[in-house]
Amino acid sequence: MNIRPVLWDGGALRILDQTLLPSRERYVRCATPARIAEAIRSLRVRGAPLIGVAAAYGMALARDLDASARLLIAARPTAVNLAWAVERVRRARDVLAEARRIHREEIARCEAIGRHGARLGAKRILTICNTGTLATGGIGTAFAVCLRSRAKVWACETRPLCQGARLTMWEAEKNGLDATLVVDGAAAAAMRAKRIDLVVVGADRIAANGDTANKIGTLGLAVLARDFRIPFYVAAPSSTFDSSKRTGTEIPIEERSPAEVSTRFPAWNPAFDVTPAKYITGFITERGIFQPRDLRRLRT
Amino acid sequence: MNIRPVLWDGGALRILDQTLLPSRERYVRCATPARIAEAIRSLRVRGAPLIGVAAAYGMALARDLDASARLLIAARPTAVNLAWAVERVRRARDVLAEARRIHREEIARCEAIGRHGARLGAKRILTICNTGTLATGGIGTAFAVCLRSRAKVWACETRPLCQGARLTMWEAEKNGLDATLVVDGAAAAAMRAKRIDLVVVGADRIAANGDTANKIGTLGLAVLARDFRIPFYVAAPSSTFDSSKRTGTEIPIEERSPAEVSTRFPAWNPAFDVTPAKYITGFITERGIFQPRDLRRLRT
Repeated sequence: MNIRPVLWDGGALRILDQTLLPSRERYVRCATPARIAEAIRSLRVRGAPLIGVAAAYGMALARDLDASARLLIAARPTAVNLAWAVERVRRARDVLAEARRIHREEIARCEAIGRHGARLGAKRILTICNTGTLATGGIGTAFAVCLRSRAKVWACETRPLCQGARLTMWEAEKNGLDATLVVDGAAAAAMRAKRIDLVVVGADRIAANGDTANKIGTLGLAVLARDFRIPFYVAAPSSTFDSSKRTGTEIPIEERSPAEVSTRFPAWNPAFDVTPAKYITGFITERGIFQPRDLRRLRT
Repeated sequence: MNIRPVLWDGGALRILDQTLLPSRERYVRCATPARIAEAIRSLRVRGAPLIGVAAAYGMALARDLDASARLLIAARPTAVNLAWAVERVRRARDVLAEARRIHREEIARCEAIGRHGARLGAKRILTICNTGTLATGGIGTAFAVCLRSRAKVWACETRPLCQGARLTMWEAEKNGLDATLVVDGAAAAAMRAKRIDLVVVGADRIAANGDTANKIGTLGLAVLARDFRIPFYVAAPSSTFDSSKRTGTEIPIEERSPAEVSTRFPAWNPAFDVTPAKYITGFITERGIFQPRDLRRLRT
């Protein structure tokens, strides 16, 4: 893997500043939990699994574990990986060793997700946001499925922050994948015209019933996929499942500054939407592929 | 009406350069058909009814009517208003008088569309692209429905050229309408969360069976509206109907430069998509509201 979005250097976490990609590859050095929380809030580091990893390392820099846990968990509300990772390292004897273990585990989970997803045999995959190395530390979730399928990728640009246009296209190029960018509004036309055979997306939090919070725009893709009879899969590691939330209505949805959309006019800027389980064909996890009604088995 | 997107000054057409809005209000003076064709191609003037009007004035500047007609019609392929207006002025005795007549008629058709659309009684309308004065010369098509309903407007930003973010929001502000901008990917979440009671869009060409070519992203909104049980209307003057095309598959769809989407990565950039008639609740025209199966009556 030639992209390393976070690097532990002994006394700090070096974070590849994703807000500058693909124009510039610059690391910011975060030597305190507060700096890591800031990097998470400002999206220098992003992606549900990866912010869990970054926050785990943040705990390794903490003087006061409880205060740092609160700070890191509060950085962003929607992805459950953040709280999951922080709580796990807080209970560990060796915080840094546990952070490293989480990091290694996410890398392994990504490999397994890619392997299971490739069994679907898709050749033309449409996806949204960025779900690759930059989102996970490993080969990705939905992106891993593209990669291990050697599929042609159709990437939605993912306004307002263009993670698809800036990050997924960059990762596809680095991996030699055939990828074409479309504006989010062109997803429907692409599904009709380009014989897309699979839509696969990542997730920020998955409720017990399978309702899935993910990047704004995901719900629209799911509804379209069902109407066009294209399978719609969510690819996510077990760290993204939150069985304490019964349905998607209980998942907190982050609203970000309207200025990300427009500095001139009023705007509504939810960072995520919730896709009801009924639109989801299946979940590609490190433990295999599950239908929404079988998610209970994933927890045992 | 305080916005005048085209002005005939006796010897030339002055065109408000829409590529500069909302930052700058600057007119370009076009004294030849070639200059007007360039302004249409480069989207300084845009919107199906308005490019018909601009092209009609272009014919009034022609030395060679046949050559100018070919040039103007070829400027953009999808909106039928262009060919419709050019052919009409070509057959007229007084080309300039006929161009002015088309201009006046489009203004009157917009008023009638707004009046008929307001009968739907919508209070929260979601729309895409720009369909106001800047697209028609009159009060608009879909925008006229918002205006005459005094509805709260939810405007999709309409990537890649952001006609919603730049032009519709600007017109809403000028008209004192309550309007909120969303990224195109947030349309589904808005429909679920914001109790949108009507989706209304413009059109570039409507085939005999009701299939409708309009701004890329329209098809997605139509599929979503049906799934969420929200009425989906197309607002368009009779100049946008093309009974020579039996279905949407016969409508030519303009693909524009990938550089409008990305200068860094490969992109697919269709400017329009085709919404099948089955997704369309009705057509709001100057002659009243028609269901797709009743469009035949519109032609008699």
